[in-house]
Amino acid sequence: MGRTLISIERGTGEPIYQQLRKALEHEIASGALNPRLPLPSSRELARELGVSRNTVNTAYQELQAEGFIESQPRRGLFVNPEMLKHLEYGEDEPVATAVDWSQRIRRSPDAEMPEIAKVRDWDRYPYPFVAGQVDAESFPKLAWARALRDALDPPHLHYSLRDGIDEDDPLLVDALCRAVLPTRGIEADPEQVLITLGSQQGLDLLGYTLLRPGDSVGVEDPGYLDARHIFSRAGALLTPLRVDASGLIPPPDLHGISLLHLTPSHHSPTNVTLSIGRRKQLLALAQQSDTLIIEDDYDSEFRYQGSPTPALKALPGSERVIYLGTFSKFLAPGLRLGYLVASPELIRELRSQRRYRVRHASGHLQRAMSLLIENGQYHRTVRRRRTQLQRKWHALRESLNETLPWRIDPPPGGVSIWVSGPPELDCVELARRALARGVVIERGDIYFADPAANRNHFRLGFAAIPHEAIRPGVAQLRRVITTMLEPR
Amino acid sequence: MGRTLISIERGTGEPIYQQLRKALEHEIASGALNPRLPLPSSRELARELGVSRNTVNTAYQELQAEGFIESQPRRGLFVNPEMLKHLEYGEDEPVATAVDWSQRIRRSPDAEMPEIAKVRDWDRYPYPFVAGQVDAESFPKLAWARALRDALDPPHLHYSLRDGIDEDDPLLVDALCRAVLPTRGIEADPEQVLITLGSQQGLDLLGYTLLRPGDSVGVEDPGYLDARHIFSRAGALLTPLRVDASGLIPPPDLHGISLLHLTPSHHSPTNVTLSIGRRKQLLALAQQSDTLIIEDDYDSEFRYQGSPTPALKALPGSERVIYLGTFSKFLAPGLRLGYLVASPELIRELRSQRRYRVRHASGHLQRAMSLLIENGQYHRTVRRRRTQLQRKWHALRESLNETLPWRIDPPPGGVSIWVSGPPELDCVELARRALARGVVIERGDIYFADPAANRNHFRLGFAAIPHEAIRPGVAQLRRVITTMLEPR
Repeated sequence: MGRTLISIERGTGEPIYQQLRKALEHEIASGALNPRLPLPSSRELARELGVSRNTVNTAYQELQAEGFIESQPRRGLFVNPEMLKHLEYGEDEPVATAVDWSQRIRRSPDAEMPEIAKVRDWDRYPYPFVAGQVDAESFPKLAWARALRDALDPPHLHYSLRDGIDEDDPLLVDALCRAVLPTRGIEADPEQVLITLGSQQGLDLLGYTLLRPGDSVGVEDPGYLDARHIFSRAGALLTPLRVDASGLIPPPDLHGISLLHLTPSHHSPTNVTLSIGRRKQLLALAQQSDTLIIEDDYDSEFRYQGSPTPALKALPGSERVIYLGTFSKFLAPGLRLGYLVASPELIRELRSQRRYRVRHASGHLQRAMSLLIENGQYHRTVRRRRTQLQRKWHALRESLNETLPWRIDPPPGGVSIWVSGPPELDCVELARRALARGVVIERGDIYFADPAANRNHFRLGFAAIPHEAIRPGVAQLRRVITTMLEPR
Repeated sequence: MGRTLISIERGTGEPIYQQLRKALEHEIASGALNPRLPLPSSRELARELGVSRNTVNTAYQELQAEGFIESQPRRGLFVNPEMLKHLEYGEDEPVATAVDWSQRIRRSPDAEMPEIAKVRDWDRYPYPFVAGQVDAESFPKLAWARALRDALDPPHLHYSLRDGIDEDDPLLVDALCRAVLPTRGIEADPEQVLITLGSQQGLDLLGYTLLRPGDSVGVEDPGYLDARHIFSRAGALLTPLRVDASGLIPPPDLHGISLLHLTPSHHSPTNVTLSIGRRKQLLALAQQSDTLIIEDDYDSEFRYQGSPTPALKALPGSERVIYLGTFSKFLAPGLRLGYLVASPELIRELRSQRRYRVRHASGHLQRAMSLLIENGQYHRTVRRRRTQLQRKWHALRESLNETLPWRIDPPPGGVSIWVSGPPELDCVELARRALARGVVIERGDIYFADPAANRNHFRLGFAAIPHEAIRPGVAQLRRVITTMLEPR
């Protein structure tokens, strides 16, 4: 190695083996070392440089790991010929051929469908009548932080941190079966429950598990737009079914419809409740045509008169009903935690699907949620939230009926009020103009199979908006509406 | 209504409107009420029963919401004919036709592939050499709990709770770009980053976004088994490419391979590092055949000699490289949090894919993680964890070389040591017998395209096992191996 001069500086803070490694790397890259000759042994080089053999060995190991040198049995260490080969590729600057992503990205079947476009910075507006968000002020900070903290102590810690592969937190599943599902009239065993990242994941897993390309899915019209996207992406065709004041109008039969998506407790987006009569009728029809039913029960907790209707899944003969619940609406959508109840055979398959997509929901969040249910905070929070929302619901309904030029009679549930204006009212334009006055509302047309024919509907969410902002917000909205309805 | 006797009991605790509602419901269900006659007005009934009109109205509203009665314009309230209709369906017990789930469930293309079968209750064994799990004792409890608590205060609270639809926490993305990716030599802008629920979700989203049925994916052999499942489920065909001590052996060309999955830092499962020479060679080949490369960089932090090799994504001309990182290995797999770096066009599409599957990772976890990075705890934790793992790696390597009848020279990185025994050693049998002695190890055959021909490999994870259990664990293992290798 006398051929090359490697200078080691001590006290530079840079480890010596590092300096040595770099120097050798340079020798190799610059082609100064003869690839046909072995490198000096560590003893040799150590003596030459006055460093320890370990230092040299570490440098050599690293160069080897990174492929600069390779060990040849009984001959010693040599420069890796591949290193020299790649030097021919013009060293460090291969000509990068740009990737044409438009050609590489697989096109989704729902590309033409409209999307729910939320006002992303809604929290910066004085009157955020947004749907699907919650009021941060009423979040049970302390209870939740405490549950998360407790979930980091044994025996919980293990479940908070482990890779569960395809398993859920047994404590959470147990708490759901004992303390949550019964409030909906549902009796379920642990093997019938799957923890999801919210109803959305439930719909996605079901779509890919139950639908074959070309299958027909019955959806409510108007209905939950994201569900339509999810089923289309799974390759399904959509059959819109009209909804009136008693929920989805049962068709004469459900033949040819393999899956039916329902929001029976509070229809999305109008909040009407599916009548008991129709529930039984749909169940009977589904059995005749072997149709599976998804009961998307996203916010049944929030009913402001009387007690919630029992779930479809609670009715006799509901094996074909797949129940979706979520913690998003009552606690916070940002948590991404929900659950699914179905037959054990289906749950097993969904579990395997989920394993290869996300494995499972965060163990820490699952354990914290189960502690929240165990210690009663869950039910206390639901009750408190319900009272707050009930007050807001009344306030919103009253101020709408006091100020709007037409009467509304919203169903007593949900976290939003659906408003159908006179046919000439364009909700898209209304939403635009209202926003200019600080009022965030949601256009209703996109929830219909035929948006163009339904531009006179809009939605006012009241979960995120502070109580005191409701009346002034509606007042602002009225001004916009009045000017829009003025005869020109 | 004189025809029926409705008895209201006071002081039963049951609200009066409830009692009234139930009584009326019974009258309807039993068919006692004439559907052609209107129900008594609320005033009438209130007087008759000596209750307030509100009470009667609430009961009526509820019966109406549930479809027992309906309001006919200018005629009053009537029994809902649908209710009577459904009575014909044999009342509450429709004959439930069982669902044949085996017919309904869509079959996955990977049904024949073996699966990584972990010992689920590994924490109950004295010598858990499991891979992919962490030692709960070394988890930074306080720092993490603190970050979660802080994430519940303004201005963080909003981001912890909101429904972000398809957005990530901007603070986390920013922290990744500034403080985490540079440690891998990667320069990225926010629009090049997507937060995932771990590398697994990254692979899943990429599979469905980039692969068309029948596309060919190059995978390492041996290699990460879950990735093969994910790509098959996306409809792809797999092309196994051999791996040696310098990582994947570059084929003459990559023509016909649309996507190549690599674990360059520490190959899964053998932990070898892909040599610099081969990295450049593969990058050049990928450009010639317009192949996209997934760099699955799941635990590059854990290198025990020298500094980690820079990421493939850090090399010039790496636009076609999609980088996957995760927080699972350094903090905990149970958190389900990771990230993906790619071109903005691709990120936009992946974002839309993710929106309709799970929307996004938990906002609370995202915000807490960004605070952990901001306050330096992240890097402190990585360093502490690395030191612990380094000590364990040395201990495991030494005791293996002291006790095993053959020498091993594991690469200095990763959280497991891959052991190749003599050809006659059956690792499946070994794993079974070792477990009986309290030693949890992983069979290595299933990581190969041809498991039957590779039964002499196994893997020892050392992240979860306590340091002091390593030597006794290996001693136990040696006993099993010796008896298995004894000439019969």
